[in-house]
Amino acid sequence: MSRIQGPLTGITIIDLTRVMAGPYATMLLSELGARVIKIEEPGKGDDSRAYGPFIKGRPCYFNSINRNKESIALDLRNEEHCEVLDSLLAGADVLVENFRPGVMEKFGYGWETVHARHPRLVYASVSGYGHSGPERDMPGYDMVMQGITGMMSITGEAGGEPCRTGISIADVGTGIFTATAINAALLHRERTGESTHIDMAMFDCMLSILETPIARYQMTGEIATRMGSLHPAIMPFEAFPTQDGHITLACGNDKLFRQFCGVIGREDLATHPDYETNVKRVENRPALRAEIIKELARDTSDQWVARLAPLGVPIGHINNVEQAITHPQVAARNMLVTTADPVLGPLKVVGNPFKMSAFPDMTTRKLAPELDEDRQCLIEEFHNSSKSSHDR
Amino acid sequence: MSRIQGPLTGITIIDLTRVMAGPYATMLLSELGARVIKIEEPGKGDDSRAYGPFIKGRPCYFNSINRNKESIALDLRNEEHCEVLDSLLAGADVLVENFRPGVMEKFGYGWETVHARHPRLVYASVSGYGHSGPERDMPGYDMVMQGITGMMSITGEAGGEPCRTGISIADVGTGIFTATAINAALLHRERTGESTHIDMAMFDCMLSILETPIARYQMTGEIATRMGSLHPAIMPFEAFPTQDGHITLACGNDKLFRQFCGVIGREDLATHPDYETNVKRVENRPALRAEIIKELARDTSDQWVARLAPLGVPIGHINNVEQAITHPQVAARNMLVTTADPVLGPLKVVGNPFKMSAFPDMTTRKLAPELDEDRQCLIEEFHNSSKSSHDR
Repeated sequence: MSRIQGPLTGITIIDLTRVMAGPYATMLLSELGARVIKIEEPGKGDDSRAYGPFIKGRPCYFNSINRNKESIALDLRNEEHCEVLDSLLAGADVLVENFRPGVMEKFGYGWETVHARHPRLVYASVSGYGHSGPERDMPGYDMVMQGITGMMSITGEAGGEPCRTGISIADVGTGIFTATAINAALLHRERTGESTHIDMAMFDCMLSILETPIARYQMTGEIATRMGSLHPAIMPFEAFPTQDGHITLACGNDKLFRQFCGVIGREDLATHPDYETNVKRVENRPALRAEIIKELARDTSDQWVARLAPLGVPIGHINNVEQAITHPQVAARNMLVTTADPVLGPLKVVGNPFKMSAFPDMTTRKLAPELDEDRQCLIEEFHNSSKSSHDR
Repeated sequence: MSRIQGPLTGITIIDLTRVMAGPYATMLLSELGARVIKIEEPGKGDDSRAYGPFIKGRPCYFNSINRNKESIALDLRNEEHCEVLDSLLAGADVLVENFRPGVMEKFGYGWETVHARHPRLVYASVSGYGHSGPERDMPGYDMVMQGITGMMSITGEAGGEPCRTGISIADVGTGIFTATAINAALLHRERTGESTHIDMAMFDCMLSILETPIARYQMTGEIATRMGSLHPAIMPFEAFPTQDGHITLACGNDKLFRQFCGVIGREDLATHPDYETNVKRVENRPALRAEIIKELARDTSDQWVARLAPLGVPIGHINNVEQAITHPQVAARNMLVTTADPVLGPLKVVGNPFKMSAFPDMTTRKLAPELDEDRQCLIEEFHNSSKSSHDR
């Protein structure tokens, strides 16, 4: 199997996570070059193997975020299976798990025990609420986290129902944060020899993502609400209708606003006392919005993008997912790569967002593993490598 | 100034970024212990110093994501200022910039030049579309990226207008990805001595976040749409009304669904042939949804949470931002920390999502800097330290 060359090449991750936050984190680490060995429940495997849609029995959801990985099915209540896990941990750099707090301890693989046996192993736990506090034992799913942390309360149309962010932002966000933390811990280990337990909570990560509305509340007492496509603090910074569709327009400073006004032939707006600074534009949003809508209705989205974008005014189409991935920049940036599915043939998955001059940006990926696919190879490889030869 | 102790303690970052994606990335790195020195445009500073709201002249947006940092105002067209920047770079580990592609080259600080002068320096660029491809010179703002990559097309009510995710997900997401990449590059440098140029694009990061709907499209041809609070592939996994409000309910597998049915007194639903697997529940969503709504209307959100959560059924309130930060878990996890504002007094900002057993989780943070606040100290410190004493 040709592995990805990257900054984490040579790093081995034992991955006991399931569904999305953990598997997304280890997928990112694999894109950076790490080897990821997925430990799954015998017979059943990762819960997300059962999530649709399926095409000819192939699970779309599971296959997309488990590419590059290897799989072995281990029952942590079975002594022989635990011996296999022990040999894997002895040859690994990182353990990642997303059981509820206490479950790894019950299996005999809590941080204290594992750290005593493998002092160089970085140990990352991902859970809903973290391993401390009154809610530590509560289950955490993306939807619950989007609701409880306030994200749903600020997503959706003004006056409408609370909406879910189109993707599982609590899972995906926590996955990226977890990858950040693991890399930092590996750096610390490399510099000092010291390992650490990382305790990542979806709850904490969502609060960090909500930095801006929380800061606003702390300073002003103002509780953010749903505003459709508007930005609460910048104007114009929202979707506008055109003659044939919608565009986004994001004038983040006064200079961009003046350029925009020039192109739409309304220099008078740029110098109008109600609109000359961003603060004033936010205060007088409805009137300015009406003026802009009137002007943009004269031409098509393509025409406005062609006139404004070259001047540096941030503007764009509102694409659906199909339009997005046919954008010429996707191919130019190698952001769709190919896996070879034995049933479905070549399949595209999203590529590596970490572009680095020191490493090649490969165009193919190993397909996600079948449950227990790598059992024999892994047992032979790790059982035969003595622990002492690995520990540096 | 008491610095945060973390895995990046001892790492110095020269931060030429503005507004959000870059500053959010370096804020995260500062939470991991890195020292962040912000280079700002003389007189004006970071664009986001001008974003409201302001309380007694203090900018809420800027202050929240620039805590922990130091500031020096440098004009890269001024030779003396460039000498100061050179001395800073000689003593630093990372340079981060988010100018448009080509601008750093114009200033004489492109990757090739800087790498030749400072071979150990990690150099991270953050831009809208990345440093390659036909769109490389186009401006990229959060709103534009949410539109162009498809995120807005799948966020909002079914049949309603495309909505912005409640926070600037393209900025914040790119910030977390950038922190991940920088840590990986620092690890690689520590292990091999080799540095790298990191080319992060908001466009690429958004595609990575959109992994699941893109995989779904690739396999099925199905173009994801806005669905309010529904999850396209899991049921029940959405917001439901109760007697007095809304709850989220996220039964990610059949066992959780059976437990839920038991608590609402509808074991018949769990064994009904239309609902016994997740795939069938998704197919028969409207009928099942009506049954669930009927049952949940009998009691309050508090009552349902109290009955279902202890059984492990993922459930939660839909909180606004104020309710979210008064959740007892926030204090228990130290997720609001204190900065001392000279005008406004103590102010809370969001704490560190990277909880690590090896490091203390501090309860205070240094306030965001005034423009150029640290000029004299920085010039003295870095000018006096010779390059050779730093390079290892």
